[in-house]
Amino acid sequence: MNPLSRLIFQLGKLPGVGEKSATRLAYFILNQDPQFSREFAQAILDAREQTRLCRQCFHFSTEDVCEICTDTKRDLGTICVVERPSDIAPLERVGSYRGFYHVLHGLLSPMDGIGPEQIKVKGLLETLKTRESVQEVIFALNPSVEGDATQLYLSRLLKPLGIRVTQVAYGIPLGGSIEFTDRQTLGKALENRNELR
Amino acid sequence: MNPLSRLIFQLGKLPGVGEKSATRLAYFILNQDPQFSREFAQAILDAREQTRLCRQCFHFSTEDVCEICTDTKRDLGTICVVERPSDIAPLERVGSYRGFYHVLHGLLSPMDGIGPEQIKVKGLLETLKTRESVQEVIFALNPSVEGDATQLYLSRLLKPLGIRVTQVAYGIPLGGSIEFTDRQTLGKALENRNELR
Repeated sequence: MNPLSRLIFQLGKLPGVGEKSATRLAYFILNQDPQFSREFAQAILDAREQTRLCRQCFHFSTEDVCEICTDTKRDLGTICVVERPSDIAPLERVGSYRGFYHVLHGLLSPMDGIGPEQIKVKGLLETLKTRESVQEVIFALNPSVEGDATQLYLSRLLKPLGIRVTQVAYGIPLGGSIEFTDRQTLGKALENRNELR
Repeated sequence: MNPLSRLIFQLGKLPGVGEKSATRLAYFILNQDPQFSREFAQAILDAREQTRLCRQCFHFSTEDVCEICTDTKRDLGTICVVERPSDIAPLERVGSYRGFYHVLHGLLSPMDGIGPEQIKVKGLLETLKTRESVQEVIFALNPSVEGDATQLYLSRLLKPLGIRVTQVAYGIPLGGSIEFTDRQTLGKALENRNELR
């Protein structure tokens, strides 16, 4: 394979990048000055080599323990459980949540052979053991069968420990319309309706 | 900037990759084994370092003269003029064109200060001087004001040399419908109508 085809091949491995986009991106890279490719290649290497999983919450981190876990100003009483590291940034952007996180790195899916040992369940239980201050675990999982199963499994483990277990609300998104909201979401929105006061 | 932010920043420089996509791609890269990033980074460096412009047609090439220009089975009588190196692959895929190419690396655009010296016009004239076998120059430029201007400028230079100057047909794309074809395209399609035989 010539270098251009090899670059297209590598770019095509990225999610959402088909052969056409990969070709377009490769030509773009070739059209930039060499400094661009050097910085780009170095950024890929550095990010992958200098990033590991936080020993405590399993978020990506350049240190042994991540910035959030070492932040002394955060609320020691809550842990928010997410599926992937990429779920944390959008939750942080909201600004109102000041507790800690725990990244499962997957959801339970018996059909795909993913049980509690394949995701970071043990780590969560260990954190709860060492951090007795935790009073609430909030699940912020993507709504799906696997999300529900994971939530159910974990809540059964957590409730006996006397911990409050909650989930984020699912419903019609702000800016959305009843008319164009899918059946499942509308079902959830009805089911989770709130009392007007 | 930490390594993850730096990777997101670099990915965000790619065309069509906004901050959201860049973040998604960066997380994907971090989730792969280190081998993935090494191969990816190397592919970027190799492609950029080992690729130059063909001395003859200005297409990307790993050699001094590209594969197409050195192909002895091609038709010496025609040169197809394109704007960018990325225009060549789709034309080659058609399979019916067996002549040579010339990449302009831009289009004339006086408004943006792009005159004949800023694009590869001189190279085309030199090729025509050394290759007396050329009887036809086909323009395959993206339809635009700049494309038209470039075509007009070049055809005025080429016609006095006794060279046949043609352009690819512009019209309703196959699979397209009259109903949903834009005004400009329909205009071209009417203007360029062909006699039924």
